Amino acid sequence: MTQINSNYNKLQAGYLFPEIARRVNEYAEKNPNAKLIKLGIGDVVKPLSPAIIKAMHAGVDEMANVDTFKGYGPEQGYEFLREAIATNEYGGRGVQISADEIFVSDGSKCDSGNIQEIFGLDNIVAVSDPVYPVYVDTNVMAGRTGEANEQGMYEGFHYMACTEENGFCPDIPNEHVDLIYLCSPNNPTGTVMSKDQLSEWVQYAKKEGAIILFDAAYESFITEEDKPHSIFEIEGAKEVAIEFRSFSKNAGFTGTRCGFTVIPKELSAKDDKGNDVSVHALWNRRHCTKFNGVSYPIQKAAEAVYSETGKKEIRELVDYYMDNAKLIKTTFEARGIEVFGGVNAPYIWVKTPKGLTSWELFDKLLNEAEVVGTPGAGFGAAGEGYFRISAFAHRENVEEALERISKVF
Amino acid sequence: MTQINSNYNKLQAGYLFPEIARRVNEYAEKNPNAKLIKLGIGDVVKPLSPAIIKAMHAGVDEMANVDTFKGYGPEQGYEFLREAIATNEYGGRGVQISADEIFVSDGSKCDSGNIQEIFGLDNIVAVSDPVYPVYVDTNVMAGRTGEANEQGMYEGFHYMACTEENGFCPDIPNEHVDLIYLCSPNNPTGTVMSKDQLSEWVQYAKKEGAIILFDAAYESFITEEDKPHSIFEIEGAKEVAIEFRSFSKNAGFTGTRCGFTVIPKELSAKDDKGNDVSVHALWNRRHCTKFNGVSYPIQKAAEAVYSETGKKEIRELVDYYMDNAKLIKTTFEARGIEVFGGVNAPYIWVKTPKGLTSWELFDKLLNEAEVVGTPGAGFGAAGEGYFRISAFAHRENVEEALERISKVF
Repeated sequence: MTQINSNYNKLQAGYLFPEIARRVNEYAEKNPNAKLIKLGIGDVVKPLSPAIIKAMHAGVDEMANVDTFKGYGPEQGYEFLREAIATNEYGGRGVQISADEIFVSDGSKCDSGNIQEIFGLDNIVAVSDPVYPVYVDTNVMAGRTGEANEQGMYEGFHYMACTEENGFCPDIPNEHVDLIYLCSPNNPTGTVMSKDQLSEWVQYAKKEGAIILFDAAYESFITEEDKPHSIFEIEGAKEVAIEFRSFSKNAGFTGTRCGFTVIPKELSAKDDKGNDVSVHALWNRRHCTKFNGVSYPIQKAAEAVYSETGKKEIRELVDYYMDNAKLIKTTFEARGIEVFGGVNAPYIWVKTPKGLTSWELFDKLLNEAEVVGTPGAGFGAAGEGYFRISAFAHRENVEEALERISKVF
Repeated sequence: MTQINSNYNKLQAGYLFPEIARRVNEYAEKNPNAKLIKLGIGDVVKPLSPAIIKAMHAGVDEMANVDTFKGYGPEQGYEFLREAIATNEYGGRGVQISADEIFVSDGSKCDSGNIQEIFGLDNIVAVSDPVYPVYVDTNVMAGRTGEANEQGMYEGFHYMACTEENGFCPDIPNEHVDLIYLCSPNNPTGTVMSKDQLSEWVQYAKKEGAIILFDAAYESFITEEDKPHSIFEIEGAKEVAIEFRSFSKNAGFTGTRCGFTVIPKELSAKDDKGNDVSVHALWNRRHCTKFNGVSYPIQKAAEAVYSETGKKEIRELVDYYMDNAKLIKTTFEARGIEVFGGVNAPYIWVKTPKGLTSWELFDKLLNEAEVVGTPGAGFGAAGEGYFRISAFAHRENVEEALERISKVF
């Protein structure tokens, strides 16, 4: 008989967001007139900006013409987009990343989920708690862990609790780990790591021969000038880090699908004979074997993010969501509820009031305010007692939601 | 130190197509005035048809408007597309597949590469020889094989030689296997399996508790009426098969990226405790965890493949390439060179003349005719002595290529 990958049996319940969707749908079915406001999944609501739309149309038109039609493109992405990324995201910050160190993909969820495939199963994996579930689930599926305990924590992971005490930034492990997932600005806590903090991580990784998997999908929401947008702003990081980036949140590509991963050529890891192997070459092999590039019109649209008009439009989008974040933060604070994040990230990490558990607060806000957020416990045991509010919403919905929430508390 | 997945070290040389690209680039650099004609990689050359372009533009316009903008879509694909596929690809052939058994993706290369993840590492995998390299390489990467021998055959696979003797259709194994990759119409040999042959496979799979991974990416090129387009036309197949389909070749989506995978709800496999597990549920978990859906405008474009105009336009595209195939086949035959395929598939499988090896013929055609094909040996040991010519080209290029080849032989 064909055997399944039984590691899947270790996975806890549903993936967080499907479980939220289930509860929301159940509520909506019972209350057909409900006017639900969703501040749960971090999904953008503003349409694609004009410069991007124009470029995408132009890309579609090229596909209609025999002389400009594009079949299979380079698996790693078109040169025009990789160059635009290298120049604008890195060169502009004084970071030297070459175009061929950039792998364009259909989203950073895919990349941050797939990256573990190129590493051995015996590596010790460090994840923060709370955490973006994709890092955890993909390693469980691959078989790097044992079973989960009652709190949903898997045997074999090195968990890094992110709490009020450490400012929701993970502490350097006091033992050896091999692969470290860091997310800054953080999803879900909304906090951002400083240059000094990141430098410590780079030093740790160098000392231990570890690799940092750095998810910077939210870097464009940083407002404080001294905070790093890329781990490659830290000296020596190119020898120890991979960076994931996305057009989903800054340019509104959640339904358009494009992101990229940066793997410096300096980065190496050991094979089972103790030889150094280029991680860039490994990922290139994976990418070429299992992926066939991003749709051409989408790559043209992504390139337009870096045009002069595109940059201006994207800045307005980001500012809009960050004004929402400020509104959410100040409203909660005015009700005496403690919140974190929301300054360099579009997420507000709310400390649940009145000793409610995070799923209790979820159900309370769903039932009493018809507002959907995300229970912190869904991101890990240390997320218990917290609740994530997303700033990705229309202003009038944010205002309405805050008014309703204020009535509940 | 971080360890790599050392299974990658087992992989043979470059993936076939990058190696071809390397040789072609080298030739082109040395011969800057060369007028190369590429009949190698199966990449379409005709632009997207008007109905598809129109739908894609409309999809882009929806993304520009706040009321119609789409953020994250369902990971499995939009209902409108899944329904259109169920109705047109299956219902129309009297096959009952429901929309929620269809998973839309960014291409069948990705799906046929990723599918092995949901199965255990101890399954015995059967692959034909010659074979589409993705099936092989992804299983090697996952660790289901030992090292390769001098012929490039990996320890642990059950290889099914496809030769002139068996009409290039794999024989039923005389031993137990768990996962069977079948590709019909076949890439690279261009042959197609009959209903009787597929029925034998379904019976074998039932008897052995095996699962058939059926790649039907080329089904629209079938011209003989009695040949099955889907494995689900065979009674009982829904209990033993997964099917991969693509818009790449029929609708010219190689650079646009969309395909789908069908996993019937009846299909189950065993976990390590001997319980039956739904394969549909497993793949759904994987899909939701590691993938975020296909770009909305691309899904709208794929839907248009099933409009009345779309169907007519796609039929013309397919016919155009199949007329090329006929031309290639008859020209080679007229030169006394034996060929296979080309009747129900856009590939012609040429028996190399004069005892040339397949890479020798590759180099000969590249150097003497400036025509690029694909050496059969690149698809596996049993592909030695054969050469794949693709019918995906402009008519004038096919004619010119055939003229040049005729001069060489």
